[in-house]
Amino acid sequence: MNRKQLAELIKRKQSFLCVGLDSDINKIPKHLMGAADPVFEFNKQIIDATIDVAVAYKPNIAFYESRGIEGWKSLQRTMEYLEQYKDEAFTIADAKRGDIGNTSKQYALTFFEKQQSGMSFDSVTVAPYMGEDSVTPFLDFEDKWVILLALTSNKGAFDLQFIENKETGKKLFEEVLTVSQNWGNADNMMYVVGATKADMLEQIRTIIPDHFLLVPGVGAQGGSLEEVSKYGMNKGCGLLVNSSRGIIFKSTGEDFAEVAKEEAKKLQLQMAEMLEKFM
Amino acid sequence: MNRKQLAELIKRKQSFLCVGLDSDINKIPKHLMGAADPVFEFNKQIIDATIDVAVAYKPNIAFYESRGIEGWKSLQRTMEYLEQYKDEAFTIADAKRGDIGNTSKQYALTFFEKQQSGMSFDSVTVAPYMGEDSVTPFLDFEDKWVILLALTSNKGAFDLQFIENKETGKKLFEEVLTVSQNWGNADNMMYVVGATKADMLEQIRTIIPDHFLLVPGVGAQGGSLEEVSKYGMNKGCGLLVNSSRGIIFKSTGEDFAEVAKEEAKKLQLQMAEMLEKFM
Repeated sequence: MNRKQLAELIKRKQSFLCVGLDSDINKIPKHLMGAADPVFEFNKQIIDATIDVAVAYKPNIAFYESRGIEGWKSLQRTMEYLEQYKDEAFTIADAKRGDIGNTSKQYALTFFEKQQSGMSFDSVTVAPYMGEDSVTPFLDFEDKWVILLALTSNKGAFDLQFIENKETGKKLFEEVLTVSQNWGNADNMMYVVGATKADMLEQIRTIIPDHFLLVPGVGAQGGSLEEVSKYGMNKGCGLLVNSSRGIIFKSTGEDFAEVAKEEAKKLQLQMAEMLEKFM
Repeated sequence: MNRKQLAELIKRKQSFLCVGLDSDINKIPKHLMGAADPVFEFNKQIIDATIDVAVAYKPNIAFYESRGIEGWKSLQRTMEYLEQYKDEAFTIADAKRGDIGNTSKQYALTFFEKQQSGMSFDSVTVAPYMGEDSVTPFLDFEDKWVILLALTSNKGAFDLQFIENKETGKKLFEEVLTVSQNWGNADNMMYVVGATKADMLEQIRTIIPDHFLLVPGVGAQGGSLEEVSKYGMNKGCGLLVNSSRGIIFKSTGEDFAEVAKEEAKKLQLQMAEMLEKFM
């Protein structure tokens, strides 16, 4: 999916909601455990329940690969199921990969080349520490995206990401935003920016006015969604806001899909308001 | 495997050689392609040929997961095969993982918890960008190790890793070495330090005198191995020097295992010299 298609999808659904499929087998409803592939069954029902109001799905790869081959099968089945919705939803492999060039090339094949790995996502999250040649192999695929970590939402973000460069005065995450402008562009690169630092979005938008941002860490709280929208939205929306546990595990009973639908719908309605207000 | 056992293994084999299993299915000898699992067959023969002179094996996970489920099967079989050598070789999942706490926990289960994923490595490489809570979940496993990226051997290392902290005057990779002292210790943490920057090892050793270093980027060149040893070795050796393509793909004919053995042996002999000279 390219940038224009994604922007149109957001406009049509009046939503910039990404549903995080952190589908922990220990947390999915008990009544699904009899299914041939409980995690796939869970994802399928979550997707069907939220497809009208979500524009993106983000399987968190760790929760699949930790189950070995069975987990990869659940992931493949989920991606196969999502194919019917390929014009309805952008897909993100939340994998945080990144290595030297020849190795990043292999990671790109994993997530982009169905003939090789059995899966094809629209995008993959990538860690920036190893620099340009660890990122560019992912950019060689048409209409595929790198979502580069810039400012993460966890406590450990303060350990390194705020280090100030003696030479430029920029913080490390700002350096990532700046230097990576030479690697890709707003048509093949997005950035992860944590919602817990919404006040920094204004400054971030001075560096990357046009890029899409993937924003984790927003719950059902209208407050932070409003801040993220106010400071982060651009003329093509430019935001994908993720919610995982707040949607998929809001109920762990038999009504889980119904409740997920309600939670997703609540967020979508708030997002429609934000689009009207700030775009 | 714990630090004492690793140090004894190095002393016994007179080697600190790590063989990188970057077993690209497109590069393995053609005569193996008829095997049920060509990549496993390749790894098996490489392992048998080098086990006398190598102290560690490092499958590069990208080359397995890019082949989807078949690739994970090759990886599982390789790890199962290595179990017979569990006192003879330290194992490294070269995966460059790292995410928020609950997700890093899942990556740790992937590589450390055989009952869950079908595999159990001694260690896993981890990217530092997301800070403490992205690393500590890997440290909760007894006798398992994090190998944290500090200074990598690729060109892109210069994009971010040399940024100088305005406040401390330290470069980013030095900050990683420093701040991570609070997360683990020399018994559960090693660092990746590229051999292409051997001259920096002296300074690095002032920050982390006791830790093991995993050094990629050394070929059959005695020169750089000598430099790495001179500046990087400590009283427990403290080095694992990796060679991948220079050993496993030195010949791609039917004699590949024999040639790999010769190349590994050459490196081991140089390493024995270095151990005598610098330890």
